[in-house]
Amino acid sequence: MTTPATLAEKLISRHLESGADMTPGEEIHLAVDQVLLQDATGTLTMLALEAMGLDRIRVDTACQYVDHNLLQADYRNRDDHVFLQTAAARFGMHFATPGTGVSHPVHMERLGVPGAVLAGSDSHTCAAGSLGMLGFGAGSVEIASVLAGEPLSIRMPEIMGIRLTGRLPAWVSAKDVILELLRRHSVKGGVGRILEYYGPGVETLTAMDRHVIANMGAELGATTSIFPSDEQTRRFLEDHGRGDAWVPLSADAEARYTHHDEIDLGALEPLIATPSSPDNVVPVREVAGTPVHQSYIGSSANPGYRDLAIAALMVRDRQVHPQVSFDLNPASRQVLTDLANEGLLTELLKCGGRLHQTGCNGCMGMGQVPATDQNSLRTTPRNFPGRSGIADDHVYLCSPETATAAALTGEITDPRALAERLGLEWPGAELRPREPAAEASALLPVLPPQQARRVEIRKGPNIADLPAIEPLTDTLSPETLLRLGDNVSTDTISPAGAEAMPYRSNVQAISQFCFRDVDPEYPNRGWATRDGAGHALVAGYNYGQGSSREHAVLAPRYLGLRLVLARSFARIHQQNLVNAGVLALTFADPADYERLEAGDVLTVHDVHGQVDAGAEVMVEVPAKGLSIAARHGMSARQREIFHAGGLINWLQARVATA
Amino acid sequence: MTTPATLAEKLISRHLESGADMTPGEEIHLAVDQVLLQDATGTLTMLALEAMGLDRIRVDTACQYVDHNLLQADYRNRDDHVFLQTAAARFGMHFATPGTGVSHPVHMERLGVPGAVLAGSDSHTCAAGSLGMLGFGAGSVEIASVLAGEPLSIRMPEIMGIRLTGRLPAWVSAKDVILELLRRHSVKGGVGRILEYYGPGVETLTAMDRHVIANMGAELGATTSIFPSDEQTRRFLEDHGRGDAWVPLSADAEARYTHHDEIDLGALEPLIATPSSPDNVVPVREVAGTPVHQSYIGSSANPGYRDLAIAALMVRDRQVHPQVSFDLNPASRQVLTDLANEGLLTELLKCGGRLHQTGCNGCMGMGQVPATDQNSLRTTPRNFPGRSGIADDHVYLCSPETATAAALTGEITDPRALAERLGLEWPGAELRPREPAAEASALLPVLPPQQARRVEIRKGPNIADLPAIEPLTDTLSPETLLRLGDNVSTDTISPAGAEAMPYRSNVQAISQFCFRDVDPEYPNRGWATRDGAGHALVAGYNYGQGSSREHAVLAPRYLGLRLVLARSFARIHQQNLVNAGVLALTFADPADYERLEAGDVLTVHDVHGQVDAGAEVMVEVPAKGLSIAARHGMSARQREIFHAGGLINWLQARVATA
Repeated sequence: MTTPATLAEKLISRHLESGADMTPGEEIHLAVDQVLLQDATGTLTMLALEAMGLDRIRVDTACQYVDHNLLQADYRNRDDHVFLQTAAARFGMHFATPGTGVSHPVHMERLGVPGAVLAGSDSHTCAAGSLGMLGFGAGSVEIASVLAGEPLSIRMPEIMGIRLTGRLPAWVSAKDVILELLRRHSVKGGVGRILEYYGPGVETLTAMDRHVIANMGAELGATTSIFPSDEQTRRFLEDHGRGDAWVPLSADAEARYTHHDEIDLGALEPLIATPSSPDNVVPVREVAGTPVHQSYIGSSANPGYRDLAIAALMVRDRQVHPQVSFDLNPASRQVLTDLANEGLLTELLKCGGRLHQTGCNGCMGMGQVPATDQNSLRTTPRNFPGRSGIADDHVYLCSPETATAAALTGEITDPRALAERLGLEWPGAELRPREPAAEASALLPVLPPQQARRVEIRKGPNIADLPAIEPLTDTLSPETLLRLGDNVSTDTISPAGAEAMPYRSNVQAISQFCFRDVDPEYPNRGWATRDGAGHALVAGYNYGQGSSREHAVLAPRYLGLRLVLARSFARIHQQNLVNAGVLALTFADPADYERLEAGDVLTVHDVHGQVDAGAEVMVEVPAKGLSIAARHGMSARQREIFHAGGLINWLQARVATA
Repeated sequence: MTTPATLAEKLISRHLESGADMTPGEEIHLAVDQVLLQDATGTLTMLALEAMGLDRIRVDTACQYVDHNLLQADYRNRDDHVFLQTAAARFGMHFATPGTGVSHPVHMERLGVPGAVLAGSDSHTCAAGSLGMLGFGAGSVEIASVLAGEPLSIRMPEIMGIRLTGRLPAWVSAKDVILELLRRHSVKGGVGRILEYYGPGVETLTAMDRHVIANMGAELGATTSIFPSDEQTRRFLEDHGRGDAWVPLSADAEARYTHHDEIDLGALEPLIATPSSPDNVVPVREVAGTPVHQSYIGSSANPGYRDLAIAALMVRDRQVHPQVSFDLNPASRQVLTDLANEGLLTELLKCGGRLHQTGCNGCMGMGQVPATDQNSLRTTPRNFPGRSGIADDHVYLCSPETATAAALTGEITDPRALAERLGLEWPGAELRPREPAAEASALLPVLPPQQARRVEIRKGPNIADLPAIEPLTDTLSPETLLRLGDNVSTDTISPAGAEAMPYRSNVQAISQFCFRDVDPEYPNRGWATRDGAGHALVAGYNYGQGSSREHAVLAPRYLGLRLVLARSFARIHQQNLVNAGVLALTFADPADYERLEAGDVLTVHDVHGQVDAGAEVMVEVPAKGLSIAARHGMSARQREIFHAGGLINWLQARVATA
């Protein structure tokens, strides 16, 4: 008899390429079944595929979505869409035209398959755990390597079991579950772990409820999240015309989890993350009465039909508070169509709601930026400082119930209190359209190879080839340009928002936005080091959290970044640094962080030799007479990539010798 | 028995303040019943009201709409919305929250009254002619003066009668009527005229069909357009719960028109304006087969339920061509709600359509910018170069039928040919929702005076007070910085688009965008003249056509503009120049235009004396030994305003002495 296994272990074991032993922390290589690309990161992937000379992708299924850069305030975003559409056709992928919706829910609707491994160029790829899939976010170039047939390389995570019991009370929903986990464990609590949900409470959650929870596992820093595939999963797939994709999947009854937590769903109450971190969580009632100027529902973190339907039922025959902009952001065309068919869109409009196009939209500052000093309640996954598009923002994260209650009252309001006051009847945990309009989010089909080869990839004038990267020299002596604190997100390193994002296909241009809100002079100061000794960054814990965007390494690298020395890294960002040929080190003794400051020149001798010799690298600070022990944490494969000057160089060599 | 009168003459006569004789070309002063403000120009109006110290507006009804600057890519646009909402409450106006829709159709739905005079800070205010109103666009500061109780001053136009006969054939609609007029008369054909429609064909057109035609009267340069108020008008008002606002209105049977044209509706065919002017009109069949990448329906020029309903019926059970972005832009929340209720929104979504928020949107480059070298078919009113947001654009104007045909085929297609090919049945001229959701576009109510006085007007950091304007000195000798061609639009002078428009509340900042596509150095070159002799512009015919935006005079004025010498001016722009204290002159002999070039210093002696002495002003060009006769065309009131250094200075003096 075999050892009882968790669901995550079962799926990893099925996809393990080499004979590795699944020891947590060791690098493992996974065969990938499906790939998901979004536009803000996908253009780099397509540029990398071109640079590698790939003819056709080597995974079963891939889809390029267009959900981030929808505003088209100049020609650049639409040029990107055209580039991506022609490149997807050329390389043999599906394509979702703008307006189809946010990648994660649409992928779940149209292509998700329980038990599959999905790699995606977006940090919320983990949302696929809602269907019993293993979804991993990765950088654009890492995804290009997967599309070229390479396995996905990750550190074997520890599995954290989260046992759900009970049933959500009235006016409490899935968002409150993940906010409770953020409250307990913080944005670092999931680092190096897979969050696996099990227990009797699981069956009370629909597949889209699970999406809410799995999606925001990214906010705990988790490698991914996973739910069993059960009757709820089957029902979701059947609702989308794909019942035959269903297989049952679950952990063995006796499976052991390295870490453990338990949530009694019945004991939860409405929660809210106050500005400006997803783990600043308090009960809604503790901040009730705070004025609200924007209430934003939808997004990848609450993408389901029920997330907008519950709002529609709450606002029926009422008007939103005149001070509140009630911004409706359906996450997929299917959900929007279903709401229209059920008469609920009418309710959302008549109350004074403002319907936006389907997509990511204001979640990362592409529109819907709040006014100066205005509080915004959002059902989005993140409220990092400035992510909404205004530097000094005041963004709260909450459930659709809580956001809608505030839309009606103009202040933060516990939806239970509002329901009591208005005599609102709770419509129950589940709200389904009578006949889901599955065809509304149809994807463009994959072209057969001969037809695909005739497709001309179209690149507008803003689409620049990737800058070449040289391997690091054997002695480094970069100056520290910035000393940063804890939890610096990729939003801080390479800002999102409507101004910067049109340059996502142009690393050279987007580099001018790096660290804009920390030090607007960083691009110039960095550039001045580029052809000399380069520069270093020193950071606290969890450096590079948030979005998977590779621009947050390629752009600083282009400006001369050689070395990042941090207390710890977010998983995807560390991998991206290696893939860009940057030396990413963690302090052996985190206390050494305190001994460094901006201006310090950090010298590393025999870089490549030290990396190969062991786990530690010595960093000298000659001016202070310091020697600081640091760890590179690179696997054998990553060391090869690092020596080559990054993943593209390494892949080019492999494609050439293949 | 009195002389038989045109409808325009009747309404003018009813609103005439002084005993003027309605001689065409003479200045007349009209009592104004209603005022319409949109956000991109309304902020200047509100700043002017503040500068004047107004307590409460002195017209019956005014509404501030928010339809232009909806993208909120940073805090500026939303700050403007908050400013406008608080200012509208403070001064006693209605307010339409973002998402309610485009000012013109919403005003028609909610506030329009046959027979009333409407002044609006938008050049398409003339659309109100669809309800038998006289709608006049004017600059922001001119509108502020109207709100303060001043009459609206215009030159008495000539009345052009357009007799409609017959009935539109299948797949031909109102847009083709106005395109036919543009084909016949060009963008200058309506200058100094009111276009008055009459004849047996009128009753075959719904009120919203008439809106399409009246709206784009602006593109002919007409002062305004007007239709009778008849059973169609009554039905529209009844559909919107305002049947009691109806009165019948028409011209006398024997009325004489100074100019005359006639259109047999039954003889029209689908027409299209090719790039880049609304009068480059040809039959659709002549350009059939041209590839299309964007098909854009909705906007103020085709805002009606039927304009989207006909598209929905065409795409039912079909998919749009994969190369086409089918952009759906409902013009009002009511129309969007009606489409959802009738099941037609579902058709527009399922075919692959991309639904955008209700508003002006891509019409002036606020999103939906086409990709490089892509052809865009739009039902919007204008295709001036660059207006779509990309300098070298390829925008065609057409009916919803023609735009939708292209969405299905991927190329310009005569909708009659498509209908034949697909066996499409024409649903008839009229498409109505069974039960219009009139409440979906509700406006915020006007506050009673005591409550209004307690409202604090909120101004974000980007909202700047209007720059002060000094009266012109008695001798001018500005250098000509630019010599411009014919038909230069206000889009060229002060660009729209997502980059510039957030600065609409900040004349100082928006001045940096002036003439961006003509001479990017103009702002710097202008600024250098500001504290010295200032500068001049020389232009061809129809200078300042298009939008009524006052930024196109205040921003150049801020940069040192003193004198514009043109072959002719668009009406609103000339008025705006006077209102900004700029000397606006037309060549007495248009041939003199050829004798001038950039760099010429234009000297005018005794400016104020010459203006008062007669119609002509002598402009010397000492370096060329030239004396050029020019005409100022200012009325007595305008001369006062000019001497004072613009309208605000003049009003301040009047308010102080009132």
